[in-house]
Parts: sequence; structure tokens; C-alpha cells
Amino acid sequence: MLLLRRCHGLTRCGPVSTHRHKVTPAVASCTARLCSSSGAEDQRLSQRTNWKHVLAGLLAGTGAVLAYGLHQHKAEQADVGVSTLEKSSPLPIFSQDEVTKHSSLEHGVWVTYKGSVYDITEFVAMHPGGNKILLAAGGALEPFWALYAVHNQEHVLEILSQYKVGELTEDDLKKQRAAEPTDPFSSDPERHPVLRINTRKPFNGEPPPEILSDSYITPAAFFFKRNHLPVPQVDPASYRLQVEGLPGGGLTLSLEDLKTKFPKHTVTATLQCAGNRRSDMNKVKAVKGLNWGITAIGNARWSGARLRDVLLAAGFGPDVARWARHVHFEGLDKDVTGTPYGSSIPLSKAVSEEGDVLLAYEMNGEEIPRDHGFPVRVVVPGVVGARNVKWLGRVVVSAEESGSHWQQHDYKGFSPGTDWDHVDFKSAPAIQELPIQSAITVPADGAVIDRSDETLTVTGYAWSGGGREVVRVDVSLDGGETWQVAQLRSGEKGQAPEAPPPPGRAWAWKLWEITAPLPPEAQELEIVCKAVDSSYNVQPDTVPPIWNLRGLLSNAWHRVTVRVRDD
Amino acid sequence: MLLLRRCHGLTRCGPVSTHRHKVTPAVASCTARLCSSSGAEDQRLSQRTNWKHVLAGLLAGTGAVLAYGLHQHKAEQADVGVSTLEKSSPLPIFSQDEVTKHSSLEHGVWVTYKGSVYDITEFVAMHPGGNKILLAAGGALEPFWALYAVHNQEHVLEILSQYKVGELTEDDLKKQRAAEPTDPFSSDPERHPVLRINTRKPFNGEPPPEILSDSYITPAAFFFKRNHLPVPQVDPASYRLQVEGLPGGGLTLSLEDLKTKFPKHTVTATLQCAGNRRSDMNKVKAVKGLNWGITAIGNARWSGARLRDVLLAAGFGPDVARWARHVHFEGLDKDVTGTPYGSSIPLSKAVSEEGDVLLAYEMNGEEIPRDHGFPVRVVVPGVVGARNVKWLGRVVVSAEESGSHWQQHDYKGFSPGTDWDHVDFKSAPAIQELPIQSAITVPADGAVIDRSDETLTVTGYAWSGGGREVVRVDVSLDGGETWQVAQLRSGEKGQAPEAPPPPGRAWAWKLWEITAPLPPEAQELEIVCKAVDSSYNVQPDTVPPIWNLRGLLSNAWHRVTVRVRDD
Repeated sequence: MLLLRRCHGLTRCGPVSTHRHKVTPAVASCTARLCSSSGAEDQRLSQRTNWKHVLAGLLAGTGAVLAYGLHQHKAEQADVGVSTLEKSSPLPIFSQDEVTKHSSLEHGVWVTYKGSVYDITEFVAMHPGGNKILLAAGGALEPFWALYAVHNQEHVLEILSQYKVGELTEDDLKKQRAAEPTDPFSSDPERHPVLRINTRKPFNGEPPPEILSDSYITPAAFFFKRNHLPVPQVDPASYRLQVEGLPGGGLTLSLEDLKTKFPKHTVTATLQCAGNRRSDMNKVKAVKGLNWGITAIGNARWSGARLRDVLLAAGFGPDVARWARHVHFEGLDKDVTGTPYGSSIPLSKAVSEEGDVLLAYEMNGEEIPRDHGFPVRVVVPGVVGARNVKWLGRVVVSAEESGSHWQQHDYKGFSPGTDWDHVDFKSAPAIQELPIQSAITVPADGAVIDRSDETLTVTGYAWSGGGREVVRVDVSLDGGETWQVAQLRSGEKGQAPEAPPPPGRAWAWKLWEITAPLPPEAQELEIVCKAVDSSYNVQPDTVPPIWNLRGLLSNAWHRVTVRVRDD
Repeated sequence: MLLLRRCHGLTRCGPVSTHRHKVTPAVASCTARLCSSSGAEDQRLSQRTNWKHVLAGLLAGTGAVLAYGLHQHKAEQADVGVSTLEKSSPLPIFSQDEVTKHSSLEHGVWVTYKGSVYDITEFVAMHPGGNKILLAAGGALEPFWALYAVHNQEHVLEILSQYKVGELTEDDLKKQRAAEPTDPFSSDPERHPVLRINTRKPFNGEPPPEILSDSYITPAAFFFKRNHLPVPQVDPASYRLQVEGLPGGGLTLSLEDLKTKFPKHTVTATLQCAGNRRSDMNKVKAVKGLNWGITAIGNARWSGARLRDVLLAAGFGPDVARWARHVHFEGLDKDVTGTPYGSSIPLSKAVSEEGDVLLAYEMNGEEIPRDHGFPVRVVVPGVVGARNVKWLGRVVVSAEESGSHWQQHDYKGFSPGTDWDHVDFKSAPAIQELPIQSAITVPADGAVIDRSDETLTVTGYAWSGGGREVVRVDVSLDGGETWQVAQLRSGEKGQAPEAPPPPGRAWAWKLWEITAPLPPEAQELEIVCKAVDSSYNVQPDTVPPIWNLRGLLSNAWHRVTVRVRDD
């Protein structure tokens, strides 16, 4: 509320771009602060480009999605707050017809939300999604916010409240409610109840650590699910994949084509979300994004056509290689404006024989489950999950990187000193290969060990991006003072390991285990793990120096503390 | 001396393999301890394989070479020590003829050193170079030790003293001295006097940090020199490169062939010694190896034939790809037994179009200087210096990795908990791609800054192996509490930067610079740098958790402390 009041006047004197005042740095700074984590220190005034990015994470429906329960609760609270705030000044009543007249910058942009009417004309230029906001002009915000649950946060509602100009008539409110959209997530698939849920809509969940490290090949039910939008319902019979950007006008492939016209390849590959272990960063200082634990990672056997083979069939050759640099992927999961989830990878990875990029239609020997991309997803081994596009609809060969939000304004790493007021997304490359990672799955943080056990067994996983094989995992029982080398495993327990990969093509993780004597006298143990890959990359010791505003790439040593109980 | 006495009896009861006692673990452990750094804690008994590796670094003339001045001094001291030790027991006088009779295991193995006679029969089985030691049997050690300067260390002389059996006649000693070999290093090239010398013979030197970061392209004179053996004298007219292991019986190429039969390619690539920044590890706990500072790294423009093209011309094709996995390189620098310096790289790197491996005959637009491999060296961009073999004589395509000492028992990384008694060289992969690295070249550690300057400019370099581009360098003036982002540079100051590399082919370093306000009040600043590569790999915070017994891969944050002086 304090911030709100401080910004009130400034926001009022704000834009809009064309026919009103020009946006001032003061407004930008203020808006940015409203949308950044509470408790942030006072920050210097910033440039117009910066606050756009501040809001990007919020409004484009991607990163900063609050837990469903949490945001519902907050939204209700905020709603009360809005009413209270405006109670002292009775505002006029408008009909839907009157609101509808204000559906352009020329005539003003009005929207309704829960029976209130807002003139957001001034805000349009500040909306990072740009003109997308005009889709709601003259109508209700609810259908849009149903998709972008992220809007339902207190500070977003606080921003909205600044623009309130009146109330909708009771009749029109009733009509609106009757016409409210059905829940776009209602056809999402069932999920295994063991998953720990980050958000329900869109669904984001991860398995308990001790279950994850039980299997070298992660069963699909326990494989972390990271959805940006509702899971699309795709009919496999009418499914078509469009391959574009190549000479000859493109290629259209049915699921049957993919299965029968190209050799079937199988690759065991680990996928990891860029936000895995974000919770460790949140403990240092709040970041934007889903509060993943240590299990937004899984290892599966993927089968499908090689992207290389499909691109060659579609006309890729030396002529294309001269100008093309990237391959874009678009999902069939679309937002309310029809914009699909999208990303791209470098062409060199896509067409390399050693890149092993698949258009996968099987996961662990069965058809890919809906949550993992049915009927076809791209599997880009060694590369961040965000580029492994699910429900693949379109592949485009291009001279440019994907322009999608998720490629340009998300999934990039920044210095710990970079804040939302100063971040320049153009200054950092889109995350592709991920760095070396490891974590302890057993014991859990806070576990209690009996001294009479005499030994302690610690288990975990380790993986590195770019096909770099994990060559060693060091484990410490004393917070990193002394280290022992863990046993690595490349297969199910008690079974033969998978064949060793060629150099640079180690796409799968290793599970590890060590049994060590309990140090005598110790009352508490700080267990630490750190892994080394075949390029001898190591994990950083601590979290604060790699902290970044989006909480990505969280790969510091993993630490758990256990207590030793005397019998 | 204490250790010496403790081991004396044990060593005497030692081997030799065939006709005396079998080597016991106790002997092995004792020997190992003698050869490891003094001051090491008492260590558990070890297996035979372990002490072999302990001595390997010493006796194969590679890693653990002491500074010339230092070892000469120590050798003289030790010499005195040996005489003193034996003074109380007058020993018999032998003629050279009598010594010569003992030149086999059957008749005993005697050697002479500085006029003393030693029966080293029992030691032969303990010599990690194996039978190589028999080359000296019946004669003088001096010509061998002239090549392997590493032998001239106090503890090696202490081991030798155990085997003293007599003195050489004065006459024979005089004859020996007259026949002493000319210095094998006498034809080494001149070096720039600015280089900081680690060892003179073989020559190992690095430039002052502030000179290194003056140029984006390091002039050859200032490029670090890392030689394992004397620099060979190669006549370019009679030089021949042998290419073997391929169908058709191999290919022999003259320098002229290399220059005229294959397209000339130019690559800007940074080479770094695996031991760069070893001095940081030595500060934690003594390691074996040259005590490099931060400048065993340089960036040059290399030109030559692509290895890929030469292998294709020599018969490489799909048939070979089915069984071949590695490409070996052998230098023309040979030890006294005729064994050349050698190493290998994965075949995939050697034949890849994107690997950019060169058989280089030019460095910075001129013929490669002798210290850097005249007339031909391999340049393996993104890969540790040790695989960039100089004075290239032979290229062999093989199913196996190079069996050379430097591939199998050196240049590998280990856990900080691994000591010489327990190291298993088979457990770690040979270093190929190096991890992310950066260092501060200006100001120097201990520098004094005037407070009236108000700002401080910090400069340095950053590089990563495997073609991973440096995407960011963070600099801290407060020991890592807060961070600022440095400006990166890919060319000479004030000139246009080099063209950006394709993804995965960023072989060259970046120089960086930052000018920041001097923090008011600060009396002392701990300046820290850390770099990030395109796979978002980062440097570890501290040295101890990456410490390893050979002091390789030293890439923790670089720190320098400066004092702020009030005027």
C-alpha cells in the first residue's frame, strides 16, 4: 500500500504513447517496483526498456506463475482491497454498451473486471505484451486472465485499481458471468498424486526426491511436468507437423509419416527445467518463477524420427546451410491470442549427426503421454527443457533466432548484481546447453540418523548439458571440508549399465551412491555433493554468486543437513 | 632424514622382481612417501600400482620439474648429504670395468653418479619407467639425468644413497667427466628476457600478466612456453610428417606438401596449459608440477592445413570411422630412450568440420617459432595445451587412446581427497576440453592505489574450452559480496572486434575491463573475477574443493588484494 500511494500520482501523470504524455522514467521505475518482489530496496530510476521486461514475466503468462491456491487467495484479498480503496469516492455506473465503445486507443481503452470498469488507456504503452492487451478492450478481462493466471496477484490488481472509472450495471455483470468461459484447463490429463504441485493451472509438478533416484529411467508418471499453458487435445489421426523455411514450399507430415517414412531412433536423454533447484535461490533472495525443488529433472528413453532426417527430406542442404542459423519449434499449446509456445535451437545442433535431436513419439517405449507432448515433442539432448517443445506443430528453418517471449525475454542468465530495473535481455544469450548439476535425493534435509547405524548411505543424481559425461561426484559429510568419491551408475540397480556413449554424446544422467562410516561424535552432518563433467566443469560452491533475478541455472553444491540421534 | 631412516631397512629388504624378494606393500608405501611432498601426513599402506604412479611424475621427466636454480642448489646440498651419511663406513673403490660388468639383472645393476657407485638392482622393479632404467646399467647416470632434470631433487638422491656400494677410481671419474655429454638443451632458442622462468631445462616460462592482457593476439615472444624436453632442431627441407593407421599404408608429407596440397585455414585459438594458475593450488597444499602463475595461456592466430583434410587424403572414410576412435600425435622431441612426447584426441574432434583442428605451420602470420613447434604443430582449439603437440612427427589413427605417459598417467583430474597413495589413473578421463577460466591481469596482487584516483580500472582475460564462448565476466571489489559486469573485448583495443564465431566454435578468449568508483573509506579491496560461458558454466568460488595432487584445472575465482593509500 505504501508503494502504491507513493506511485499513485506518478502513474496518473503517465503515458500513453501516442496522444498523451510520454512515459517518464519516474513512472517506469515506480511500476517496476510495484511488480518486483516486495521488500526490495529503493532502486534507481531506470529506462523505458527495463520496466517493460519487469512486467514481461508477469503478463506474458510464463515465468512468474503463483501457486494456484495462493493466487486465488491473494486475488480475493486484493479484490477486497480494491473495493475498500475506492469506497470513499462513489463512481458512475456504466452499461456494457458504453464500455464497448472504448475499445481503441483513439476512443480510450476500457475493460471490466469483476463488475468494475477500468480505463486502462494510459497503461497500454506500459503493457509488455504490447498490443495484445487491446484484445480485451471494451470487454472483460476474465477470459484472458483465466489463461494467464499470473495476473491474479495482488500487485497486478493494485496496478489495475489505479485505473478504475466506474461500475458495470448489475444486469450486464450477470450476463458476463453467464458467458464466462469454461476452464481452459478442464481437459488437462490426470496426474499421479505423488507429484508435488507447484501450480495446478498450468500444471507444474515434480516427484519426491527419493522416488526420482529409485529408477535410472524415470517412469513418465513421475517425470516432472512443466506446462506453460493448458495441455492441448490433439487427435493423432488428423495431427500434422508443418516443416517450413526450406526450398520447395515446406513439408507436411502426419504422425504415420513420421513413424514410417523415417528410421526410428532411440536416445536416453535427461531433461531438466532451467528452474530446477530455484528454491535454493529463493532462500537467498526472492526470485520470479516456480519454486522448484531438486526434481525438475528426469531421464527417459525417447524414440522417434531424427530431426536431421526430416530436415533433409524437406530440402535442407548446403544451399540452406549458407544462410540458415536456427531451427524454430512451435507447440500446439496456444494462448488466447493464438500465440503458440515457441523456442529455437542453433541449426548446427539440429542437423548434426551427433546432435541426436529427435521428433519423438515414444517415451520409455510407449506413446508419449499428453503431459509430455502427445503425439510429438522435440527432444534436444543436452539442452534446457524449454527448447524441448511439446505438442510440436511447426518446425521452421530460419536465419534468425525465435522471436518468442520464451527465447528472447525469459530463460536467460544474468549477473547477481542485475535487477529488474536494469536487466537488458539482449545482453545475454538464450540458455541452450545446461551446466553441470547434481543433487542429493536421500537422505532428505532435516532427516534423523541413528548413531547405531554406524554407516550412512547417500544417493543422488548428476548430469551435465551438451553431451558432457559426468565423470565424478564428490561427497562431503562435513560441509565441504573433506571429500569422498561416490560410485556412479548408468543403469537400473543390479542390471547391466547402458552402453557408454561416444565422446560428446553423453545425454543421460548418472545416479550415484556412497556409503560412509558415520563420523564418531558428530551430532549433525552437513552433507554436500558436487559433480564434475568430462570437460572438468565443476559446480560453484555457493548460491549467492550465481543468484539471478529469474532463479535459473541454480547449480551450486547441493547441501542437506541431518541430525545424528543417540539411541 | 627421519623418513629416510624409517624406510632404510625396508628398502634394503626390498625386491628385485625375478631373483630376489618380491616387493612388499610396506616398501611401496615407504618409497611413495619419500617421493611425495615432504611434510605429508602419515599415510596408509598402498598397492603396488600406486607407488609406480608416484614416481612416474618424477622419473618420466614430465610433471614435477623443479626450477633449475632450485634443483641445482638442492642437488649440491643433497650431494653433501650423501657423502656425510656414508662417511662413517669406508666403502671399496671400483674401476669402471668392474662397474660395467654389472649391467643386467642377472649380474646386478650398478650405476655411477658423481664418482660414487650404486647397486640399484633392488630398485629396478620399483622404477616406474620400468626397464628404461637399465639403459644406464653399468655406466653413469649423468647423461640420463641431464635430460630428466627432475631427478636432481633431494629425495631422489636420498633414495639413491641407500644403494651406495663404493667409489669409482679417481682415474675413471676423470675420464667420465671428460666424456660428459654436451648439454642437450644447448641448442634451445633464445627467449625474451621478460618471461618469468619456471624451469630453464626444459624451458618453461610465462609472461608478466600486465603484458599478456595488452594484446588480444599474443605475440609469439610473450606466448607462454611449455616444453617437456629439449627443443628439437628440425630441417624444414627434410621434414616429413607420417600419417598412419589408415588403409593404403600411410601417407608421408613434406612441409611443402602441407602448404600446397591442402587449403590453408586460419583459426584464432587460445591455448592454455592444464597447469595454469597451479600456484593458487600450491598455496592450499603443495602439489606436483611447475608453479605456473596466471599466464600459462595465450591467444594466437594459427594457420595451416586442416587435420580433417589430411586424414581424408590419407584414406579416412566411413570404413575407418567404424573402428577408429582416436588420433594420436607424436612430437619430434624425444627422450634419451627415443620415446617421443605424445598424446591423442577423440577422432570425432579430429575429423569434424566444426572441430577446426589444424596442422599449423604459421603462428600470427609468420612461420611457427621453434619454441612453439617449428615447423608444424597440431592446434586443437578448445582443448588443453598438452594435446596441441609441437614439432609434429607422426599422426596415427587408432581404436585406442594414446598409451603415452602424458595421456595415461598425467593431465587428468582427481578429487581433493585423492592422494598419491590412492590415485588410480585409470579412474579419470584424460583432460581434453578445459573448463571456464578467468583471471585479473591488472592490478597486481599487493598493488597500492591512490584514493585520489577515485576510480579503479581492472583488466583480465576469460576463456572456456570446447568452443564455448565467454558470455559474461563478473567483477567484485569486495571479495565477492557484490558484483558488476565487465566489458568484454574480442579484438585489439580501439580496433574492430573479430567476427563472432559460429555456435560451439568460440576458440578465442575475451579480454575484459571494468572501471568502477573506488568504494569510499575502503582501506583494502579484495578484487575478484569470475566468468560464465555459453553453456552457463561458472567458475568455482574457492580453491580447496578443486585442489588435486597434480595441481591441474585450477579455475576458481581469481582474487587480488590491493591497498588504498590516502594522499
